[in-house]
Amino acid sequence: MALSSFPVPPEQRFFEDYQAGRVYEFGTVWVSEAEIIEFASRYDPQYFHLDPAKARASEFGGIIASGFHTASIVMRLYVDHYLPRSASLGSPGVEDLRWPHPVRPGDRVRIRITILEARPSRSKPDRGIVRTKVEATNQTDQLVLSMTAVNIVRRRPGV
Amino acid sequence: MALSSFPVPPEQRFFEDYQAGRVYEFGTVWVSEAEIIEFASRYDPQYFHLDPAKARASEFGGIIASGFHTASIVMRLYVDHYLPRSASLGSPGVEDLRWPHPVRPGDRVRIRITILEARPSRSKPDRGIVRTKVEATNQTDQLVLSMTAVNIVRRRPGV
Repeated sequence: MALSSFPVPPEQRFFEDYQAGRVYEFGTVWVSEAEIIEFASRYDPQYFHLDPAKARASEFGGIIASGFHTASIVMRLYVDHYLPRSASLGSPGVEDLRWPHPVRPGDRVRIRITILEARPSRSKPDRGIVRTKVEATNQTDQLVLSMTAVNIVRRRPGV
Repeated sequence: MALSSFPVPPEQRFFEDYQAGRVYEFGTVWVSEAEIIEFASRYDPQYFHLDPAKARASEFGGIIASGFHTASIVMRLYVDHYLPRSASLGSPGVEDLRWPHPVRPGDRVRIRITILEARPSRSKPDRGIVRTKVEATNQTDQLVLSMTAVNIVRRRPGV
């Protein structure tokens, strides 16, 4: 499917700019071993996220990023390039978060966005709900994360 | 339902120690404004995670933690108290990640664990799959995160 581009930058985006069927790609971002270890030591201190020697001797074959670190790296690309800057009203959650392949030190991660649905809120007329398929891949096109994100987005005033 | 406790510490846990129906509670952990802002500036730089003044003037009423920060805080409790230390073989993903209430500066977060299913792997006889309902609450018992986590866990050798 052909890639889209937004007609306006994140600062000027509102609900009306998110249309079902549109596909976008953003990135890459480079992931260092130091960042993987730093995140793991704070939030997910399992040896295969933290200890290169032990991880190398295990079936992981080397350290891999925590799944929530991978999700956070993806979130940064999603915020910088996709979400509206001031019209974003948060998220109630995420469906089907998957990590088919791990992120490893030195990987370059990019994201592919497919808008699944964009509908006005039934209860609040000033906003809409956007459902987005997010797929993140590494430099050899292995899928490192997929999820369906739900975002609440303010409608353009006066439209 | 009555709370359980594990008969052995994380270092000695294997698949056989995870039994469907068991319920555990762990925590609390205290979340500071500085930590919320630090995480957001790296991974989710939306103003309501980052800028106390702007967030106060918004419908959020003050800064709130990034959803993936909340998930990472929960992961730390999950790793420290629940997962086996050396028998953990990672996770293919998470279902139905929800953030019903935000985490705010000064909150104390704890987790409630319910083991939904623990079954031997069909393809690899040395491991099993554990499905776990995770619910995190704050100091006033508001639900700040729920998810169903899937973990691969090595079976006890020689059993």
